[in-house]
Amino acid sequence: MVRIGFDVGGTNIKAGILDDSMNIVAKRMTAFPKESGYRKVVRKMHETARELLLECHLNEGDVKSLGIAVAGAVDVANGVSIKACNLGFYNAPLSEEMKQHFPSIPIHVINDAYAATLAEFKKGALKGCSNAILLTIGTGIGGGVVLDGKLFYGGMKHGIEPGHATLALDGPLCTCGNRGCVETLCSATWIAEKGKANAKAVIDRAKEGDPACLEVFNEYIENLSSALASLTVLFDPEIIALGGGVSLAGRFLFEPLGEKVKQKSFFKYPYKIVPAELGNDAGMIGAALAE
Amino acid sequence: MVRIGFDVGGTNIKAGILDDSMNIVAKRMTAFPKESGYRKVVRKMHETARELLLECHLNEGDVKSLGIAVAGAVDVANGVSIKACNLGFYNAPLSEEMKQHFPSIPIHVINDAYAATLAEFKKGALKGCSNAILLTIGTGIGGGVVLDGKLFYGGMKHGIEPGHATLALDGPLCTCGNRGCVETLCSATWIAEKGKANAKAVIDRAKEGDPACLEVFNEYIENLSSALASLTVLFDPEIIALGGGVSLAGRFLFEPLGEKVKQKSFFKYPYKIVPAELGNDAGMIGAALAE
Repeated sequence: MVRIGFDVGGTNIKAGILDDSMNIVAKRMTAFPKESGYRKVVRKMHETARELLLECHLNEGDVKSLGIAVAGAVDVANGVSIKACNLGFYNAPLSEEMKQHFPSIPIHVINDAYAATLAEFKKGALKGCSNAILLTIGTGIGGGVVLDGKLFYGGMKHGIEPGHATLALDGPLCTCGNRGCVETLCSATWIAEKGKANAKAVIDRAKEGDPACLEVFNEYIENLSSALASLTVLFDPEIIALGGGVSLAGRFLFEPLGEKVKQKSFFKYPYKIVPAELGNDAGMIGAALAE
Repeated sequence: MVRIGFDVGGTNIKAGILDDSMNIVAKRMTAFPKESGYRKVVRKMHETARELLLECHLNEGDVKSLGIAVAGAVDVANGVSIKACNLGFYNAPLSEEMKQHFPSIPIHVINDAYAATLAEFKKGALKGCSNAILLTIGTGIGGGVVLDGKLFYGGMKHGIEPGHATLALDGPLCTCGNRGCVETLCSATWIAEKGKANAKAVIDRAKEGDPACLEVFNEYIENLSSALASLTVLFDPEIIALGGGVSLAGRFLFEPLGEKVKQKSFFKYPYKIVPAELGNDAGMIGAALAE
């Protein structure tokens, strides 16, 4: 039996088939059909799934489950994408729609940050840890928390949004309407704006010793380490994994960051701060593994 | 069967006996014997317990359990007060010591903020809620979180410290060494310093319309609502109860606070923000109920 996963982003849809050992046996990336509505998006995903199955000499009966990861608020119980602005989904019943095409396959819809957390937990950087956090650092910051060996969906099942905790009461205005959210001070966007180049370029130049970029990078470490230390006083996790482009900076990022987090963490405990392992496939893998 | 609870503070020790219905049947307050070491403190607690039992015509055999609430880090499994600076306890084996006096009674040692949370959860403002938070606002800020019907001790069992999450990256220096912790901007101490009087006086004058005190109070609401909104994006609780003197301000505090939290909370959900119900007895009651 195999599992199918989709990670639906505003630019591309990633699709993949996972075998019983959670290995990717086939994958494909297609353009997201902008402004065409959820029905057309689901139709396109269905076509892709058929093609991938054919490629693997499999058919519908070989599929254990199909998962769809989308940004924003999700009604997990009913498989509805409640609000995903960059996809144009508002109360889009993705599960119901996909069921029209694959009536015999269990369909799951999951928030993309949660999917990535689930993937890292099942086969990536968080594997074997019962209490763990993943933060994905990109344009914004998404994340997920594993508590006691289970993905934590929030007490009222709204999900959790670690990127929107307040880090600086009078900080920059956030897309959510508040000021100084973690996202405004710890995203790749912050690095790019402060360093007047894309985040990768700023970090690369900082590595080479460029004083202006190094200053931006050091300030970034201060911001991010305070955000992570705050998570440690609230969740006290064994490990925090960071995904997204920024996490590719390697030891240049993780060594000073780990030191600072330990120093700032109330319990002075050496929390493991590590790079995520599954890269851009995390959302798709997590979608496939959703149950 | 009854339960005995102690709340050991730097000024006083509160002791009480709870019946099977969690009602207080006897209680007593005694001075904390400063600088005398944990052995003498435990001896004094034992004497008080004997007196209370006598008063209720009970004996050791009627006692189901005895709990001790102390500030700071606690090794719950071994009943050790790891670090409680204001009590002078450092790796104090309170459970072992109390066992010398009451060999047949199960002894529990618990952090005081956790004890208060447990008490509010079992018989106070959080009763019947599976996902809830208590913040006790005083000189500092302590708190506890109930997740899925259980007190959450943190992933690595260090406990959690909601007063030491960062709220203002460049804010005032905190006793923990970081800047801008929730505690530095949301404690009664903040109100007192800003209002140049004790917190109660500042709030009372704000109620009467004193412009300077009203300004302090409104700024306080901004600070506290951001702290609570941050907790909602991370824990998504059904309810948050506030204890400590500040919470006695009533609707004058809770009405604007509830509005602001809803407005700032990412999910725009009307989280219940309510006063705690058990007042100064919460720690003692929770200690008695510890299991």
